Amino acid sequence: MTAVPTYDDVAAAALRIAGHAHRTPVMRSRQINEQLGLDVVFKCENLQRMGAFKFRGAYNALSRFTPEQRAAGVVAYSSGNHAQAVALAARLLDMPATIVMPHDAPTAKVAATKGYGGQVVTYDRYREDREEIGRALSEERGLTLIPPYDHPDIIAGQGTAAKELFEETGGLDALFVPLGGGGLLSGTALSAGALAPGCRLVGVEPAAGNDAQRSLAEGRIVHIDTPQTIADGAQTQHIGALPFEILTRAKPEVVTVADDELVASMRLFATYLKLVVEPTGCLGLAALRNLADELPGARVGVIVSGGNIDLARFAQLVLGNG
Amino acid sequence: MTAVPTYDDVAAAALRIAGHAHRTPVMRSRQINEQLGLDVVFKCENLQRMGAFKFRGAYNALSRFTPEQRAAGVVAYSSGNHAQAVALAARLLDMPATIVMPHDAPTAKVAATKGYGGQVVTYDRYREDREEIGRALSEERGLTLIPPYDHPDIIAGQGTAAKELFEETGGLDALFVPLGGGGLLSGTALSAGALAPGCRLVGVEPAAGNDAQRSLAEGRIVHIDTPQTIADGAQTQHIGALPFEILTRAKPEVVTVADDELVASMRLFATYLKLVVEPTGCLGLAALRNLADELPGARVGVIVSGGNIDLARFAQLVLGNG
Repeated sequence: MTAVPTYDDVAAAALRIAGHAHRTPVMRSRQINEQLGLDVVFKCENLQRMGAFKFRGAYNALSRFTPEQRAAGVVAYSSGNHAQAVALAARLLDMPATIVMPHDAPTAKVAATKGYGGQVVTYDRYREDREEIGRALSEERGLTLIPPYDHPDIIAGQGTAAKELFEETGGLDALFVPLGGGGLLSGTALSAGALAPGCRLVGVEPAAGNDAQRSLAEGRIVHIDTPQTIADGAQTQHIGALPFEILTRAKPEVVTVADDELVASMRLFATYLKLVVEPTGCLGLAALRNLADELPGARVGVIVSGGNIDLARFAQLVLGNG
Repeated sequence: MTAVPTYDDVAAAALRIAGHAHRTPVMRSRQINEQLGLDVVFKCENLQRMGAFKFRGAYNALSRFTPEQRAAGVVAYSSGNHAQAVALAARLLDMPATIVMPHDAPTAKVAATKGYGGQVVTYDRYREDREEIGRALSEERGLTLIPPYDHPDIIAGQGTAAKELFEETGGLDALFVPLGGGGLLSGTALSAGALAPGCRLVGVEPAAGNDAQRSLAEGRIVHIDTPQTIADGAQTQHIGALPFEILTRAKPEVVTVADDELVASMRLFATYLKLVVEPTGCLGLAALRNLADELPGARVGVIVSGGNIDLARFAQLVLGNG
């Protein structure tokens, strides 16, 4: 059985990624603070390398490969940020990367992954199973499979974002975190538990797919159909086993937000912080806006998970043509 | 005669604004570097307080007011960012601010100026003279007039952005700077002269109004009609007398770019750096793209002057509907 990571693993990951991942800026907006009656700090992982926190976990995981693993290379299945994260980390660590992507994945994402040097293998998402293909490639070619969230090194790496945030801001009254497969939230829970034990931790899912909320309420991992939401980074059918175990102990709150609330927050980020944030990255601010009245005067952190969105799509969404 | 500022004034301004202005992040994009064959550092003044470098000069100027000047307050004329900068600096320094703005100034900029507590007086930019209106308000109400660029404290304050950049990056082979009234470029020239004497300094104007280029070529301040360009921060009819004097000595190159080149750079900033940059803030990158072939492998700085643009306008521009 895979060992459940602890905060010590987050601290070790922070040392491994130092100088490779960006220590992303923490930003504030006076206008957003005045609108919400709060003091909000945004941890801007959209300004992370390849545009999302996913680089942290990927680099941490790949940097632990043995020389034999490095020589053979890594395989990952992902249609989004994890693909680019693994491809870039592999390039920086000078190892081959094979990325399994759906045959109808957006051209821009395929191009970005190839641009980072990844070899893309496509599959038919309606007839084939990506996890099986990933496992088959792993066995046939001796590649090491790195899943997007259900892996201790991935979770430990993702926890470094909150570690940096707490180190910079000190304790916070609450911290809002996007929630898909649970890698970011469980890593954040490890850092919060060690560095800010009084901090209220809030995971935020799209309303279209509250599987994690249900999973934590029911004490078992709930599987759902792929949720229809613009938050493509949170279109997961179930959270991972390791995240589930960590979150069952950490007991974060889980709330949901609707897609139009994500778009409203995208507009706030662009207007007041001059940042392009992808819909999944807006989960935290959108939920905070719904809960601000419960937190008068509080110091609140929001993890802005990523900024990878097709620019034309971004423009259409902020114009209300989404 | 007004004293021409020197680098000592920039250094003094840096001390005055410390803890009030942001030390803005310096960012890089691997993809932009690969496209251009350069190592480019972006000084992100769109992430400055109120969204533009203008806060530096305004805070520096207002912080030098006597108690009598503070009690009466400040007046400024500006089509945008200088207005917000003066309004915010006045608010932080607890003094009243009156801002003279064109009746057709971008809604976002008018709203932001009022949001910072400034009292807005409008005029018709095609039929009335804003400098006269500003001077009249100054005389009638005892307000201290702070012009947007032709003032030693403004120039010294604007020079702090390049000072921070050179301190962070060391010497650069070239530095690209937006050029409207010349406050930013002349302040930058003071910092470059002291901190990076070998650095090639390039001022960038919109092609619709190359008055500064002509002024430096002809050795006299050339006046033009208000240029029609999306770079509203550079819609100046002539550069200031003090900037002209400093730039005549510093001899920067001046180049121009077309509006569609600004839009192309807006797309690059949003796609690769996840930043919303206003058209004027794109002048530097747009010019660098035109000149990249002359600078193979160079380390180049670009001052990204601001990010204040109506979000719907931004979206239309990046969609090609501008």
